[in-house]
Amino acid sequence: MTNPTQLWPGEQVEFSKTVNECDFAFFSAISGDFDPIHVNEAYARGTAFGRRIAHGGLVMGLLSTVASLMSHRSMERGASGTPVSLGYDRIRFIRPVFVGDTLTARYTIEEVDEKAVRSRSKVEITNQEGELCLTGSHILKWVLKQ
Amino acid sequence: MTNPTQLWPGEQVEFSKTVNECDFAFFSAISGDFDPIHVNEAYARGTAFGRRIAHGGLVMGLLSTVASLMSHRSMERGASGTPVSLGYDRIRFIRPVFVGDTLTARYTIEEVDEKAVRSRSKVEITNQEGELCLTGSHILKWVLKQ
Repeated sequence: MTNPTQLWPGEQVEFSKTVNECDFAFFSAISGDFDPIHVNEAYARGTAFGRRIAHGGLVMGLLSTVASLMSHRSMERGASGTPVSLGYDRIRFIRPVFVGDTLTARYTIEEVDEKAVRSRSKVEITNQEGELCLTGSHILKWVLKQ
Repeated sequence: MTNPTQLWPGEQVEFSKTVNECDFAFFSAISGDFDPIHVNEAYARGTAFGRRIAHGGLVMGLLSTVASLMSHRSMERGASGTPVSLGYDRIRFIRPVFVGDTLTARYTIEEVDEKAVRSRSKVEITNQEGELCLTGSHILKWVLKQ
């Protein structure tokens, strides 16, 4: 097998989901972040946003799913090892996300390092208007069982 | 006011939390990421990790809380505007996190750009053994109400 990841530049996966009140509440519970900008509507009205905005980490959550979908594709094609998340680079929250927004996360393979058995992908999240809310890049690494 | 952020390099906040089964379940529900490495113990036993590992995004969640704590400090000191998360750079998942691990997130201001009204901070997450699980950097930006 010449490319142990079994993934090639240009391959893409997508995942869409509406962000709801449960997501806000669950993310606060997981993280401990009950910042008023996320949980206090009366306070948020007085800010530049005019209402509560989603935690950046909540929005980023969708990247976990697209990375997982791409991992499955790699494994279905017989790649050896378990693809795991090595990290994120230059994540930027470009536009706020509100309760009820429907987000689409896109994951596009940009580079495959066959020697290091890693891939780098462009990640983007847009809202229902097609406006870009998040950009960045993600690294997958394939871990072999000893 | 010479420094509109009212934060200075070297300032630090910390937050600790045990990662539990609810956190795993809630993060899957929020994100849509039900990868077997996170939700299937029988599968995970056969991987290099030997058991389920936390989603990277779940671990990163704690960074949301320390960023919020630092924001509050800024606002208590009378900074103008609402501090919001602009993004993350060079996030690396160095060590896996398991159910029951107690994580400590540390947030340390490294640079303050008074003109752009932004700060850059070092972020680190360690487990109960003091082992580094995550490193990276975070940017806060102060948004003025129009």
